[in-house]
Amino acid sequence: MRPAHCLRQASGKKELREVHIRDLDTPSVLIDLDVMEHNLRSFQLYCDRHTLRNRPHIKTHKIPQLARLQVDLGAVGITCQKLGEAEVMADAGIDDIFVPYNLLGSHKLARAAQLASRIRLSVTCDTLAVAEGLSEAMHHRGLEISALVECDTGMGRCGVQSPGAALSLAQAMDRLPGLRFAGLMTYPSTHQLAKTTAFLAETMDLCRRAGLDVSVVSSGGTVDMWRAHEVRGVTEHRPGTYIYNDRYIVASGAAAMENCAMHILVTVVSRPTKNRAIVDAGSKTLSSDTLGLDGYGHIVEYPDAKIATLNEEHGYVEVAGDGTTPVLGERLQIVPNHACVVSNLHERVIGVRGDRVEVTWAVSARGKVQ
Amino acid sequence: MRPAHCLRQASGKKELREVHIRDLDTPSVLIDLDVMEHNLRSFQLYCDRHTLRNRPHIKTHKIPQLARLQVDLGAVGITCQKLGEAEVMADAGIDDIFVPYNLLGSHKLARAAQLASRIRLSVTCDTLAVAEGLSEAMHHRGLEISALVECDTGMGRCGVQSPGAALSLAQAMDRLPGLRFAGLMTYPSTHQLAKTTAFLAETMDLCRRAGLDVSVVSSGGTVDMWRAHEVRGVTEHRPGTYIYNDRYIVASGAAAMENCAMHILVTVVSRPTKNRAIVDAGSKTLSSDTLGLDGYGHIVEYPDAKIATLNEEHGYVEVAGDGTTPVLGERLQIVPNHACVVSNLHERVIGVRGDRVEVTWAVSARGKVQ
Repeated sequence: MRPAHCLRQASGKKELREVHIRDLDTPSVLIDLDVMEHNLRSFQLYCDRHTLRNRPHIKTHKIPQLARLQVDLGAVGITCQKLGEAEVMADAGIDDIFVPYNLLGSHKLARAAQLASRIRLSVTCDTLAVAEGLSEAMHHRGLEISALVECDTGMGRCGVQSPGAALSLAQAMDRLPGLRFAGLMTYPSTHQLAKTTAFLAETMDLCRRAGLDVSVVSSGGTVDMWRAHEVRGVTEHRPGTYIYNDRYIVASGAAAMENCAMHILVTVVSRPTKNRAIVDAGSKTLSSDTLGLDGYGHIVEYPDAKIATLNEEHGYVEVAGDGTTPVLGERLQIVPNHACVVSNLHERVIGVRGDRVEVTWAVSARGKVQ
Repeated sequence: MRPAHCLRQASGKKELREVHIRDLDTPSVLIDLDVMEHNLRSFQLYCDRHTLRNRPHIKTHKIPQLARLQVDLGAVGITCQKLGEAEVMADAGIDDIFVPYNLLGSHKLARAAQLASRIRLSVTCDTLAVAEGLSEAMHHRGLEISALVECDTGMGRCGVQSPGAALSLAQAMDRLPGLRFAGLMTYPSTHQLAKTTAFLAETMDLCRRAGLDVSVVSSGGTVDMWRAHEVRGVTEHRPGTYIYNDRYIVASGAAAMENCAMHILVTVVSRPTKNRAIVDAGSKTLSSDTLGLDGYGHIVEYPDAKIATLNEEHGYVEVAGDGTTPVLGERLQIVPNHACVVSNLHERVIGVRGDRVEVTWAVSARGKVQ
């Protein structure tokens, strides 16, 4: 990977040489900086207008410099799904991190306490045993952290199943040393708007009647982000993909194709038949996530061509039209189905402005599965 | 990640402490060394019996120490799909590497020539322009490498489409400086046994009549590996997944579940309902590859439970039976659908013998997309 600018000898003197997209090898993950910055500013503006706190999920980029940018633009802190991601972000100076994931086991509890001793860490629980583990780990070290009750308001993943169960857990958390019951968390938010609103409203009501302060109600998701204010009581939102956007977000209607900042630069490496082109990006580059979409990405230069199949290092493109293009060696840009998993596959991404390379970022929090 | 053995102070003196699977955090990728070694030896023995050369594809493990082990057990060299993988392996002392992938563009051609100057590199082409690029890059530097014609014998991916096209390309390659036409390559081999055999036989016949020596006929795939000798003329085979095996290979019949060396150690992090358990391994740990299978992996302890859905950090398990197990905090081992893509997601894997940790390997060639 080249640095953004290279010094080279030319005519006997050094000059700063610009690097362009055409100079890059493929596959490379490009981030259009103008588009990315627009995406970040637009949602922050929305939050400011609706008096919502913005707490972006860094899973989409996994890059400390971009987390810093999100905070500098107005985010109150960030969201990480794994402690390993949070540790990378804390090392880079991010000091308010929410980990909305049940933390279990001695390794993770010790690391959570270590994190809580140096940053403002908050977490979620969906059952008493998880709260008790956190309580013991924190209290033992003289720490206290905010903990939210994860509510399953329709996703069918983790979370308490009813407002009554949420209240019981909140009351238990409120009594445990080392934990401070701070409110409620759900994901996604507007997918089932009426159900989510009803679940959260009833839980807030139960908590308040029980004398519990619900200071945070945290919702999430990029698909839902422009409607986050419609869920009554929500105080903060956790969008992830909005920084880059992707084909799935475009299909959901939350962004347009021109709002997609992540493009995968690829080369046509084989044209075995008139209707088949093979590109040098397979599931190792694009991931095999379809998210219910047809095909594995959108080819900017050939929007009618379908990426029909992926092997690890091969993308099979069904060529549209008369089959004369794309030609062998031609370079294409692909908007991936799912930007987050692409970030997790790559060591580096390249920030470009127009066709000029401006920066290379290490994806420092990639691969942090623990 | 812990080292395999940790020195600790105990009773005032240092002792070597064994690390067991129970000491590991989750998710972790475990490799059962006894099973892996058995897998490697079994196929090498098959090759020796059938006078086939074994040239394993390292995409499954991406670990130089395991490539070394494959060669030490009798492999003639290795196969890499990407130059970045080949460079890692060459740096580790592997000196015979086959890259069966069309190499295009100035970056890759320069790197291929650099590799060819220090190891025995061989490649494939499926069209004249690719051969010409390689020829120029090698000849310019005074190098000559072996090149095989990639034949599409039924896969429908890259490769020449007919024996006649194979002959034409072979003749052109034979004339180009810097390249030495060495034979034919196909993948997979026995999926369409009659078609593959007929394509290769006709091509070999055409080449020999034209005075071209077909010294190598290279076939590939773990699914096909025990039948590699049935394809007349094949001189070497390139199995990848056989080192670990996985749920897909078991479904294909080429291995049994007890031959699967890769297990993902996970924890049940949520039990929101009687029939749903959530584990801390999602697509970031297991990948979203289904390879046509139902569900995302085989749970060793609960073979009837289905991993029905994955998000990035969550695996949704449909619990079978009365729903009382697995319990929150329980640790499970999952045989993944596709071992190769799991390796590509992780920085490290942990070699275990029985329940004892023996070694931790960095997956040094992971993420090499270029």
